[in-house]
Amino acid sequence: MTTRVVAFGGGHGLSASLRALRRCAPELDLDITAVVTVGDDGGSSGRLRAERGGLPPGDLRQALVALAGDHPATRRSAGLFQHRFTEVSRGDTADGLAGHAVGNLVLCGLMELLGDPVAALEHAGAMLGTVGRVLPMSCQPVGIEARVRGADPDRPDEVRTVTGQHQVAITTGRVESLRLTPAEPEACPEAVEAIGAADWLIFGPGSWYTSVLPHLLVPQLAEAIVSSPARRLVTLNLAAEKETLGLSVADHLAALRWYLPKLKVDHVLADAKAVGDPDPVERAAESLGARLVLAPVAVTDGTPRHDPAALGAALVPVLGADR
Amino acid sequence: MTTRVVAFGGGHGLSASLRALRRCAPELDLDITAVVTVGDDGGSSGRLRAERGGLPPGDLRQALVALAGDHPATRRSAGLFQHRFTEVSRGDTADGLAGHAVGNLVLCGLMELLGDPVAALEHAGAMLGTVGRVLPMSCQPVGIEARVRGADPDRPDEVRTVTGQHQVAITTGRVESLRLTPAEPEACPEAVEAIGAADWLIFGPGSWYTSVLPHLLVPQLAEAIVSSPARRLVTLNLAAEKETLGLSVADHLAALRWYLPKLKVDHVLADAKAVGDPDPVERAAESLGARLVLAPVAVTDGTPRHDPAALGAALVPVLGADR
Repeated sequence: MTTRVVAFGGGHGLSASLRALRRCAPELDLDITAVVTVGDDGGSSGRLRAERGGLPPGDLRQALVALAGDHPATRRSAGLFQHRFTEVSRGDTADGLAGHAVGNLVLCGLMELLGDPVAALEHAGAMLGTVGRVLPMSCQPVGIEARVRGADPDRPDEVRTVTGQHQVAITTGRVESLRLTPAEPEACPEAVEAIGAADWLIFGPGSWYTSVLPHLLVPQLAEAIVSSPARRLVTLNLAAEKETLGLSVADHLAALRWYLPKLKVDHVLADAKAVGDPDPVERAAESLGARLVLAPVAVTDGTPRHDPAALGAALVPVLGADR
Repeated sequence: MTTRVVAFGGGHGLSASLRALRRCAPELDLDITAVVTVGDDGGSSGRLRAERGGLPPGDLRQALVALAGDHPATRRSAGLFQHRFTEVSRGDTADGLAGHAVGNLVLCGLMELLGDPVAALEHAGAMLGTVGRVLPMSCQPVGIEARVRGADPDRPDEVRTVTGQHQVAITTGRVESLRLTPAEPEACPEAVEAIGAADWLIFGPGSWYTSVLPHLLVPQLAEAIVSSPARRLVTLNLAAEKETLGLSVADHLAALRWYLPKLKVDHVLADAKAVGDPDPVERAAESLGARLVLAPVAVTDGTPRHDPAALGAALVPVLGADR
């Protein structure tokens, strides 16, 4: 029987989650849907968004590539999507392509051509032979804004507003509150539908404030998440990032509850080494209604990255358990 | 039995020829290879070539799209390849994508990624489900230079050098001689091989100086064309273009012989209306060893464009005749 999984996130964290899910997909007969943040305003995506409008394509591209098929032709297309035009210096002509990933330009072109991000992502998915599909959390780009204490290291007690996903992601102050602009964006209807029909909803890993929490701030998604009959799994990060410096593993779980008080979680998956003392994490998990599952899910070179094979192996007994 | 056809050209003319061949492909069991000029230095292709190096992709893209498969997904990918980013004005940021066709960026990315234009075109062909394949005439870009009489309308007798395919294509003077830079570019080895193995070689329609004749100036291609056991067909244009103003239909054929004196042709296909008095054209065809075939091959709206269906219908009895 097919198990329908919806994974939320953006960037590298979602990519790791999707690569892990892909590996379990045959064994567990998974039907995978990624619901991706659309708040990026940095790098190639930020430039495309600022210059041409439309959704920032980078996180969507990463999710598509993570789900790309294994056929040599689709692997090569995935390589093409990831190929980034380098800066070349030939005479005095400006190079408008430098820094753009080809896949960002393809997605940007498809969204312009078809006028519908969902249709564009479906076509891009077909080009890459993806296992599963990729949806934006909203069909309109959103802004991310945070109230941050100590954003300026010289004024550690001052709280100021930091604007833009990129700036929030790199702030070393403490995020005290997060909001989207517009404050209540429309959810992508297909994402709402997928959540309602899901057997599992998976949150994280990923940049907590800029990739994991934004979904909970979209009212229709929050409502769909809370009312879905699906089980819910949170995969915790392996290390704090800049934006979450000072946030303990348990604090990450508390943040989920803070932004979506009605959220109930069934399992929290974490790496034993990253967790350290499990007691506070266990208590934080319990306060969400969840059982803490510890498993070795990091790559073995010591960097704080999830290993898709290890994460997949840890997901199998969780997702495969009888309901 | 498969009939191997190699079509030479670039731009709209080659596109018309390939669309016509595609239509006859099932009936005649055609194996189609397009050998495309790489001299473009105008528009999106010219900018990419100047800014990033590598082959100008526009003519290659047009040929790929002309051969794209009929499946809705490949038709949509072909539409994506043709989608041109328009100039958008959002604030004061420069828009580096404006004017580029998405397919040009995909080809540029593939050539950078794979380091081999032939492999890049093979992959792009797979993305579009092409019927047949597209090769560049050379794996290095070439320049086109012409000695033109009256390039400056105020000095009708002065002969000056006009540099660059784009400038040659739009000159209203009379082209007296044409050369490539480098003068003797390396031919694409796969193109030489395809010519040697071909049953038919097809020249034109197309911009005579900038799309049809350049192939004859590549020594290895010229040699392969002359020594191939294939039959040879020339499809004439429906109207003179800027670069060939003052050149009669018969002059077009004379130009082929001028640049490749050893060229023998079996058939010359032309539109009766465009030819007018057939006598001089027949004589010019005979001087190349060819029989003139007249057929209605233009679109019916009066514009000088080949109709792929009509051109295909005219090609069937020619290409399908017993050897």
